[in-house]
Amino acid sequence: MKSIRKTLLSQTAAQSIIDLIINGRYRQGNKIPNETELSQTLEVSRTTVREAIKTLVSQNILEIRRGSGTFVCDKLGIVDDPLGFRFIGDKVQLALDLLEIRMLLEPHIAEKAAENATDEEIADILAQCDRVDALISQGVAHDAEDVLFHTKIAQAAKNVVIPNLIPVINQAIFVLMQVTHRTLLQETVTTHRAVAEAIQAHDGAGARNAMTEHIMFNQRFVEKLKAAEEQPSTR
Amino acid sequence: MKSIRKTLLSQTAAQSIIDLIINGRYRQGNKIPNETELSQTLEVSRTTVREAIKTLVSQNILEIRRGSGTFVCDKLGIVDDPLGFRFIGDKVQLALDLLEIRMLLEPHIAEKAAENATDEEIADILAQCDRVDALISQGVAHDAEDVLFHTKIAQAAKNVVIPNLIPVINQAIFVLMQVTHRTLLQETVTTHRAVAEAIQAHDGAGARNAMTEHIMFNQRFVEKLKAAEEQPSTR
Repeated sequence: MKSIRKTLLSQTAAQSIIDLIINGRYRQGNKIPNETELSQTLEVSRTTVREAIKTLVSQNILEIRRGSGTFVCDKLGIVDDPLGFRFIGDKVQLALDLLEIRMLLEPHIAEKAAENATDEEIADILAQCDRVDALISQGVAHDAEDVLFHTKIAQAAKNVVIPNLIPVINQAIFVLMQVTHRTLLQETVTTHRAVAEAIQAHDGAGARNAMTEHIMFNQRFVEKLKAAEEQPSTR
Repeated sequence: MKSIRKTLLSQTAAQSIIDLIINGRYRQGNKIPNETELSQTLEVSRTTVREAIKTLVSQNILEIRRGSGTFVCDKLGIVDDPLGFRFIGDKVQLALDLLEIRMLLEPHIAEKAAENATDEEIADILAQCDRVDALISQGVAHDAEDVLFHTKIAQAAKNVVIPNLIPVINQAIFVLMQVTHRTLLQETVTTHRAVAEAIQAHDGAGARNAMTEHIMFNQRFVEKLKAAEEQPSTR
């Protein structure tokens, strides 16, 4: 019984810390008070505070930086695989179904980015497009930079929810890379460039269409893979 | 240093348990072996196993049922607020931006549900529609049942990713209810019914249009709220 009471106490303490973050008392990227001060603020023991912090660390709400203290995470409350995609077994089907979702979201996101991106954001998106191109032409893995290209576009769309959807899109890209073994290189270069240039021109429809084309290349490729998987012995 | 080594050990153990779940050795809803057996399987101490289990519990991957043991969660790895929406401060803007995302996802989901729902799923969606109607006509809070209506439609869409997006849609509905104070009652009854009947008729375009209309009612309402907020002193 004692251990359940302890769990409840630390959950309540964790919720109080979340409330202090929501109220703006503790801010994203900033340091929070140490254990002693927190235990006074929350009127609980230091052990309870320590348990609460552990829970919040595992939820990407707080992070402990060794030697400097406990901080509110920049990616506040967004876990790495928020929607549990790693538990879906059939990766080809997962890649296809994720592309279906990306097709709903990303052309719209590209259009909003074209409408709303600042000059600085546009320069950043173009530079990121160059970076992906360079890696591809060197034959080097470009996964992380590719994810960053899509991330920068999503950030320029100016919808408060879209940055929180980025992990979903990123996971989708990583699953896709696993499945396609990075074979769609020339198509990636061409369609990324078309998206970036339409955003630069504030051409919403152009950005939407270029992103649609980008995702369609991937869809066709994965559909072929799936068809090949389903008929392994036909020749 | 010792505490960091301990953390690394328990993280590795947690990852091993995740791998055993992914490989299908431990299944959703099923009990996993006790601490002693796990510490033998993973070749780590019981303390490390205990820490690993704690981490996985906080990530909604495992759950401890008192008196019966540790189980693999049904909602495997999907946390309650996976995308950190509770940390977004401006709730009216959040409601609007969530509706923008729902408008991208849900008409398509309704169309897929109309194309793919089984007879059993259709009966279930219609019964859920009746349940929401009954609560609304009784003047009782219908939030949870409303969420369930949208959830059942999403489950009928047969895309492996969509069930994992349900928490996003649910959060969006709860935020909307907070903001609108449940005023769109007649529109909810009418448009829910139109969605459910189009799904029953396997009418994809009809389901898409009815869901679009359902979300548009909400968008218009929240846009009016926002306009009123921005001009508080004009009269």
